[in-house]
Amino acid sequence: MPELRKDPLLGRWVIIDSERVRRPGDFHVPHPPRRAGSCPFCAGRERETPPELLAYRDKPDDGGWRVRVVPHKFPALRVEGDLERRGHGLYDLMNGIGAHEVIVESPRHEDTLGRLTIAAVEDVVRAWRDRILDLKRDHRFRAIVVFKSYRVGDGTAAVHAHSQLLATPTPSRVVNDELHHARAYHDYRERCLFCDILHQETEERSRVVIDGEHVVAFSPFAARVPFETWLLPRRHLAGFEHSSAAELRDLARALRGVLRRLDRALGDPAFELTLHTAPFADAESAYYHWHVEITPTLPLLIGADRSSGFSLNPLPPEDAARFLRDTAD
Amino acid sequence: MPELRKDPLLGRWVIIDSERVRRPGDFHVPHPPRRAGSCPFCAGRERETPPELLAYRDKPDDGGWRVRVVPHKFPALRVEGDLERRGHGLYDLMNGIGAHEVIVESPRHEDTLGRLTIAAVEDVVRAWRDRILDLKRDHRFRAIVVFKSYRVGDGTAAVHAHSQLLATPTPSRVVNDELHHARAYHDYRERCLFCDILHQETEERSRVVIDGEHVVAFSPFAARVPFETWLLPRRHLAGFEHSSAAELRDLARALRGVLRRLDRALGDPAFELTLHTAPFADAESAYYHWHVEITPTLPLLIGADRSSGFSLNPLPPEDAARFLRDTAD
Repeated sequence: MPELRKDPLLGRWVIIDSERVRRPGDFHVPHPPRRAGSCPFCAGRERETPPELLAYRDKPDDGGWRVRVVPHKFPALRVEGDLERRGHGLYDLMNGIGAHEVIVESPRHEDTLGRLTIAAVEDVVRAWRDRILDLKRDHRFRAIVVFKSYRVGDGTAAVHAHSQLLATPTPSRVVNDELHHARAYHDYRERCLFCDILHQETEERSRVVIDGEHVVAFSPFAARVPFETWLLPRRHLAGFEHSSAAELRDLARALRGVLRRLDRALGDPAFELTLHTAPFADAESAYYHWHVEITPTLPLLIGADRSSGFSLNPLPPEDAARFLRDTAD
Repeated sequence: MPELRKDPLLGRWVIIDSERVRRPGDFHVPHPPRRAGSCPFCAGRERETPPELLAYRDKPDDGGWRVRVVPHKFPALRVEGDLERRGHGLYDLMNGIGAHEVIVESPRHEDTLGRLTIAAVEDVVRAWRDRILDLKRDHRFRAIVVFKSYRVGDGTAAVHAHSQLLATPTPSRVVNDELHHARAYHDYRERCLFCDILHQETEERSRVVIDGEHVVAFSPFAARVPFETWLLPRRHLAGFEHSSAAELRDLARALRGVLRRLDRALGDPAFELTLHTAPFADAESAYYHWHVEITPTLPLLIGADRSSGFSLNPLPPEDAARFLRDTAD
C-alpha cells in the first residue's frame, strides 16, 4: 500500500510507493521506451488493460470506441482501503488511497491530442467531466486533478495519446496554494481573482492567444516558461464538472487551437497540461474558478533555474502570445 | 531591465527577462554545449570573466586561486537601479534588481564538487558565507539563495564546477512557504520545527545518511524523489552566514560525503543543490533553520508526475538512506 506523507515544511503531500521499484540500484538504468506494436491502448487490444470504466461508442454494442477510460495499470494510489490518517512522531501520513485512471484519447496509436478533430477533443474533455462526476460520489476523495505529459522525459514520444486522472484524499499543493491566494483576494475585494484576471486580459488583449465564445486562452502575466498558456471559462465556475455542453465544446476548440499552434510554432514540443478544478467542498465557491494550464518543456537556458526557487522566463508573455496569435492553427 | 512579476495566484515571483532571447523562434533549437577548451572559469583565463568579487589565494599576490567568485556574465537580475515596486491593473511587478554571482569551485576544468578534498569543499562553503555577509549590506536585497545544478539538462556535463548565488528583493516562494509553516509550528509548540525534525531523525536513525559532529545528512520523511538528501546543522541557526568555522568544516565534510555516495551509488547522477537560509529580516529568528537540500534528477518513472501536483517517489527514504549509508564514500 502506498503512503501519503506530509512534508511539514511546505504542507505538500508526497506519495511514497515502494511497490514500484524494488531495489535502489534500479535507478541506475533508464527504462526502455515502449514499442508501438505492443501498445495496450490501441484498438483491438482492449483485453490487455484493466476493465473499462467508460467508453464513448457510436453504437452501444459496437466493439469500436472513440475515447476510453481505464484504471492505470500501475496506479500511484490504490482504490481499495481506508485512509487511516495518523502521526509518526511529528510527521503526518495516511494510506495512499485514491483513483488513478487513464483517458485514452484515440483508438489510433499515431494520433496526438492537438491533431484530433474538434469533436474528438470534445469527447476527451467530456470524459474528464464524466469521470469526475462519478468519482465525486466516493466520500474518501476530496479533489481530482486531470493531467497530461506529452513527450516529457525519455522514450515517451511513441506513447499512445492519453491523459491521466488522479482522485485524491487531499488537494494538490498547487490547488491549495491557489485557493489560499484566491480566498485572500476575495476576502478583500469580494470579487473572484480569476474573473478579474479574465477581465483585465480581455481588455488588454496583449496576452490573449484565443478569444473564444466561452473559453479564453492567454499567456499569464507571470508566465514561468516561454509559451505557458492558460485556458479559462468566461463564466464563473469553480468546479469543472458543472461546465455546460457549450463550454466543453469551446474548451475543446481552444485547447486544440493552442496545441496546434504550439506544434507549428515550436516543432511539436513536449508539454505538460493540468486541469485545475476546485476541491469538491469548494466546487460551488465564489472564489475559485477552474482552468487549464499548459507548460511547454523547452531546452534549458543559461541562468537561474528551478533550484534557485525563481523561475526565469526569457520571453515576455506578450511576445509569446503575439507569436502564437500569428501562427495558423 | 528584467522585471519581477508576481503571480497573484501562488504569490510566486517570476523573472521576465527579454534581453536574453530576442525572438520566440530561438526556442526551436537547443543551445550547443560549451567546449572545454574555451572555458572562462579555468585558471589562466581570468580576464574572460567580469571583475573578480572574491578569491581565496595561498599567497596574496599569487595569480593562482583555489575558489573564485565573479558576477554572472548573463545575470538573471541586474545589480544597478531601483526596485520601483508598482501595479499594472491587478498585477504586481518591480524591476529585476539583484545580484547574480558564480562561485567557481576549482581552477581545474575536470574537477567536480564531490571529488574535491574536504579543505577545497570548505573553501566553497566559506565563499558562500563571505558573499552573503557582503551582499547583506545592500538594503535593496531581502534574501539570498545559493544553488547548484550539476549535469541537469543538455550539454552541461562539460561545464566547469560552479555554484551560483542570487541576492533578491523578495525571498523565493519555497523559502516563504517554509517560513509560513515553520512560523505556524513555532506559534503552536514554541519550538523550532527543524530542531524537532533533527531530534526525531537522530533518535530514529533510519533516514540518517551521515551523523556528523555539527551537521546531519538525512533523507527527509516526505522525500519527493529517490535519494533526496537534506543537510542540517545541529545548532539552531536561521541565517547560514552566522555559522562557525567548525560548522562550515563539518558541512563541507558531510556535503562531500553525500555527493561521493550519490556518485558511487547511482553513477554520477545529475542533481540540484539549494542552500535555504533565512531572509535577512529572519536571520536571528527562533523558527527558521538553515539547511541544504540535494535532489538528484533520475530517469522518469511511470505514473503520476509533476503536472499532477503530487510528487510520486517510488523509493521510501528509509531504503535510500540505508543504501547511501552502506555505500563507501
